[in-house]
Amino acid sequence: MSDKSATGVALLKLKYRGTDFHGFARQPGQLTVQGSLEEALSTLFKREVETVCAGRTDAGVHAAAQAVSFEVYEDEELSFRLLRSLNALTHPDMRVFDFQLIPGLQSFSARFDARSRSYVYRIAEGHPALFSRDYVWSLGTSLDWYAMEKAAAHLLGEHDFRSFASAASTKELLAQGLSTSREIKEIQFYNEVFMGETLKVIRIRGNAFMHSMVRIIVGTLVEVGQGKRSPDEMLAILEAQDRNAAGMTAPASGLMLEAVEYAI
Amino acid sequence: MSDKSATGVALLKLKYRGTDFHGFARQPGQLTVQGSLEEALSTLFKREVETVCAGRTDAGVHAAAQAVSFEVYEDEELSFRLLRSLNALTHPDMRVFDFQLIPGLQSFSARFDARSRSYVYRIAEGHPALFSRDYVWSLGTSLDWYAMEKAAAHLLGEHDFRSFASAASTKELLAQGLSTSREIKEIQFYNEVFMGETLKVIRIRGNAFMHSMVRIIVGTLVEVGQGKRSPDEMLAILEAQDRNAAGMTAPASGLMLEAVEYAI
Repeated sequence: MSDKSATGVALLKLKYRGTDFHGFARQPGQLTVQGSLEEALSTLFKREVETVCAGRTDAGVHAAAQAVSFEVYEDEELSFRLLRSLNALTHPDMRVFDFQLIPGLQSFSARFDARSRSYVYRIAEGHPALFSRDYVWSLGTSLDWYAMEKAAAHLLGEHDFRSFASAASTKELLAQGLSTSREIKEIQFYNEVFMGETLKVIRIRGNAFMHSMVRIIVGTLVEVGQGKRSPDEMLAILEAQDRNAAGMTAPASGLMLEAVEYAI
Repeated sequence: MSDKSATGVALLKLKYRGTDFHGFARQPGQLTVQGSLEEALSTLFKREVETVCAGRTDAGVHAAAQAVSFEVYEDEELSFRLLRSLNALTHPDMRVFDFQLIPGLQSFSARFDARSRSYVYRIAEGHPALFSRDYVWSLGTSLDWYAMEKAAAHLLGEHDFRSFASAASTKELLAQGLSTSREIKEIQFYNEVFMGETLKVIRIRGNAFMHSMVRIIVGTLVEVGQGKRSPDEMLAILEAQDRNAAGMTAPASGLMLEAVEYAI
C-alpha cells in the first residue's frame, strides 16, 4: 500500500456477462471481474488498488450495474479518458460505464453504504431458450405464476432468511455475531421478449442479500409453480430457520444484479 | 434420389443463432444451417433429403422462424418424437420448433409459396452492447430516428429495389429474366430492452427481398440518421437503379429473419 492518504472514494458502475468469469471475487490464477478490474486500475494509477463491491456475484451470474468503490489519493483524477483506458485494459465481457468521485468521504463503501440491491432472475418456460440461453434458467415446463406470486408475498418485509441462504454463509455470519435478518422491499413478476423468446422475470429488491439467497428463493418459488409446494408453505420455511426446509438453488445463469441504490 | 414418389411436403419452422454458421445455404466442408439440417433429416429418413428455405440468410444473420420445406414420401411420418430426434442430431445453435405436413401438395415450396417475409434489424446506439452484442449493430453514436422514419416511408409499396440489392444478385436476376421489383408492406420502428440494454429495432415486412436488401436499406437509413443524407434522398436512390447510389451494407449480426407468412 502507498504511504499517501486517501482523500476520497471513487464509485464505479459496471456491467458484465458472468458466463466466463469465475465470479466477481478475486481468486489467484482465475479470471474474475474483481481481478481484471483491480489489475487495470493498478496499471492506470501505478499503485495497488483494492476494491469493494455492492454485491459479490458467483460464477455465471451477470450484472447490469454492479457498484464498486476504491480509495482515491490527492493527486489522482477520474475522467472519461480514464474510463476509456480502463475499458481497454479490462476483459471484453465487462464494461465500466459510469463513475462518481466522492470527496472527503474515505469511509464510503460500495458495500456498506448501499441502501438496497435489486436482482433479476429470468426463466424460459417452454422450449429451451436459444438466443438468451446464457441469461436464463431454461425449465422446459410451464409454471403456475399465480401460485408463485402468492408464495412470494410471504417473503416481503423483514425476516430471518437463514432458510434461504447457503448453510455456510449462515454459519459464517453467526460465528461473527452478525444478523441473518434481511428486508425484502419488493418482488415483481413480468415478461420480457428478446429475439422472439418470451422470458418470465422475477425482480427482487431488498436491503441486502445473503449468499445464494435470491437463487434459493427462486428455486423454492419454482417448486411452488410446479405444484410441489403450496404457496403458504413459505411461512413454515421461514420459521424453520433451516436451509433444508427451502427448495433447490436456481442455476447461476438466470441471475443478474440489476441495480444498487445509494443515499448519495 | 429415391425412386419413390413424394406424396406431400413437410414445412418446418426453425430458429438459429447465426453467429457461428457460415450462413444458411449448404457449402461443402462448412458449418451451415442447411447442411446440419439436411444431414440430420437424411439420417432420420434413411435417404437423401433436399430442403428449400423461405429466406436464405448470410453468415452471422439470425432467424427466429425460418421456414424450410422438403418432400415427404408415402411411408414417412412426422411426429413430435421425430422433432426431438431431429433436434438431438442438429447443431445446438439451431432448433426446429414446429412442423406441418401438407398432403398432396408436392408443388408446395417454402420459398415460392411464401406470401411475405419479416426481417428485424437491431441497433445499439450509445455504449456498445454487451449482453446482446451478437444480435445488434453497435453504432456508438445516436441517430435521428425521426429523419429515418421519414426516409423509410419512401420505400413503402412496390419499387424496383436494385439500388438496394448487391450488384451480383441484380446481375443474376436480370440474366435470368427475373424482376428486381419488390413490395415493402410495412416498416416499423420500436425499442426493445434486454438485460438493461435498450435496442432500437427496425422491422421490415415485404413480399420478398433480394440479396443484402434489408442490410443495405438499414445501412442507408442509418446514414440518414447520422445526417449524412436527407430523408428525401431515398427517392433519388430508388430512381438511380444503381447499388452505388445507396449507402453501406449494415453488419450481418444485427439482422434476424423474424417470420414468414403462407396462405395455408
